[in-house]
Amino acid sequence: MLEIIETLEKPVHKEQNMHGKIQKVFRQMFENTCQAIEQLDGKKFIEQPWTRDKKSIWISGESSDDTVYVDRVLHGGNVFEKIGVNYVAIKGEMPSGMSFQKSGALATGAADQVTGDKATPYFATGTSFVIHPHNPMAPIAHVNYRFFQLGDGTQPGYWWFGGGADLTPAYLFEEDAVHFHKAHKEVCDRHDPSYYPRFKKGCDEYFHISHRGESRGIGGIFFDHLNDRTVEELLSFVTDCTEAFVPAYIPLVERRKDMAFTEENKYWQCIVRGRYVEFILTSDRGARFGLASGMVNVQSVFNCMPPVADWKYDDQPTLGTQEAMLREVLKTPREWL
Amino acid sequence: MLEIIETLEKPVHKEQNMHGKIQKVFRQMFENTCQAIEQLDGKKFIEQPWTRDKKSIWISGESSDDTVYVDRVLHGGNVFEKIGVNYVAIKGEMPSGMSFQKSGALATGAADQVTGDKATPYFATGTSFVIHPHNPMAPIAHVNYRFFQLGDGTQPGYWWFGGGADLTPAYLFEEDAVHFHKAHKEVCDRHDPSYYPRFKKGCDEYFHISHRGESRGIGGIFFDHLNDRTVEELLSFVTDCTEAFVPAYIPLVERRKDMAFTEENKYWQCIVRGRYVEFILTSDRGARFGLASGMVNVQSVFNCMPPVADWKYDDQPTLGTQEAMLREVLKTPREWL
Repeated sequence: MLEIIETLEKPVHKEQNMHGKIQKVFRQMFENTCQAIEQLDGKKFIEQPWTRDKKSIWISGESSDDTVYVDRVLHGGNVFEKIGVNYVAIKGEMPSGMSFQKSGALATGAADQVTGDKATPYFATGTSFVIHPHNPMAPIAHVNYRFFQLGDGTQPGYWWFGGGADLTPAYLFEEDAVHFHKAHKEVCDRHDPSYYPRFKKGCDEYFHISHRGESRGIGGIFFDHLNDRTVEELLSFVTDCTEAFVPAYIPLVERRKDMAFTEENKYWQCIVRGRYVEFILTSDRGARFGLASGMVNVQSVFNCMPPVADWKYDDQPTLGTQEAMLREVLKTPREWL
Repeated sequence: MLEIIETLEKPVHKEQNMHGKIQKVFRQMFENTCQAIEQLDGKKFIEQPWTRDKKSIWISGESSDDTVYVDRVLHGGNVFEKIGVNYVAIKGEMPSGMSFQKSGALATGAADQVTGDKATPYFATGTSFVIHPHNPMAPIAHVNYRFFQLGDGTQPGYWWFGGGADLTPAYLFEEDAVHFHKAHKEVCDRHDPSYYPRFKKGCDEYFHISHRGESRGIGGIFFDHLNDRTVEELLSFVTDCTEAFVPAYIPLVERRKDMAFTEENKYWQCIVRGRYVEFILTSDRGARFGLASGMVNVQSVFNCMPPVADWKYDDQPTLGTQEAMLREVLKTPREWL
């Protein structure tokens, strides 16, 4: 912790340097993952012009020239039905009189503070992917890594890393679940043997649709407000995480993208996507924060929404089917490794 | 108010009689509206078996033999793509130690009370329809009327009527909006000239998707916790409302159901349905209460969900199109009459 404080405290150019390093890691993931997806799909992402609604944002207009926000989408590809991606690096200021704790900016347990007469600078950067393949046999994937710092980051809990990666299959192939978890466990183990069990559990707990009594999918890893080591050590861990996603996920799509499927399989995929929508609108912190804060445009927040979701009155699958087996797994998260 | 108290106070058979009258009105609406829909569509509703999960409900197991809960659905009809309907009449008990205000059971402004050592009986009855036609030129309709009473209803604000009817078109036909509003204004005016302006405004305010800065649709009427007259007078008003729905809505579907439409029109309808989902999951009191209380099954709460909804990154319609005109109307609710 002392080391971080030293790093982030002074001189400023050293802090700037660390911010630059972190945002470069996320930008790299953004570009590399887009490239891997385009290579598999054959269709290119479209970059969306992005404007902030100055009226509704709590970030003052003080964003510096370093502020970058990029949304990309891929609709109707050869392999993927819809992919929403973004990369952000924002330097801004929280307006005066705002509770840091309520804004979600602080690490859990950090002493709350309300900005006084003057605005408080912050720095946020991250990248996010939500990937919906056409073929119902290929799982939906979500991955997001981010860094946040309030003020100069010297107060305990005033900077942190967050993120993770998780899978939502409509049809469960156990070897896919094992492959995805294994890839992430290897990265975790390289840094701390307690990470995978903690972050696997964190993922099961976070991606839970309480009104359904079900998990959203078969998990992966998830952590938030992580700052129990130096910023360099955690950046090294998060860098490895960002590099793990493509080899963890893309081979699964390669395996499943040309599998035969029926209209019933496609219908079931739409039901699973309906649950995905339910999670985003009722439980996802990022989406709720995005909508409430007005920090980004609604369409950027909803870049994570699936294409063509469906709801039926009675969507309980017949006992003994593959669909029923998946539901069972969603009700009681499994240890895959 | 005195008259109501007298009516609901004693003798018990008199109260039972009023409850019987109210639930009969809603049951009548339920049956008549289902019949009108089946006549137009040619396909019949399917009645769903319904069971309460005893573990999660705050209603104790004390529900009497009078308790009735009926869900009906019509999927893939000739005219309608999906209709979710229910009728309920429940006598139950709120467990001890529960805040009435938090439960949503009390009228706004009524003094809160927490059930003491003993459970408090309540009576709730109502009916609800969410109707999604195939043809994107025919509007989605929602209608719901309900009555609630806590204890013997003698305390101020311990009984009330709620409900309303509203339209969500994907394509705006002004004459349809006028017809629907006119039918409801006529009913309101028969009982109180202040009702239509109040309830029209109430509808615009309630069916508002705040994160979009848009109304869900072109409105209708909506009221909640209505108890400013005797229960007989309000039942007479609500009875007229329940009878107004079929002539207000069914002719619009008759007009639009065979209109030609393109794939683009169908896509736009799915985008509008996506907004409908957003409203239900982020703002609808009934759905949130239903999910939180566990009073009904999740599939009953989600009987109001549309079929096949869609989200695209940039769903802003091109200026000057019919779709753009609708969005304008949704941003600034209009007076239709």
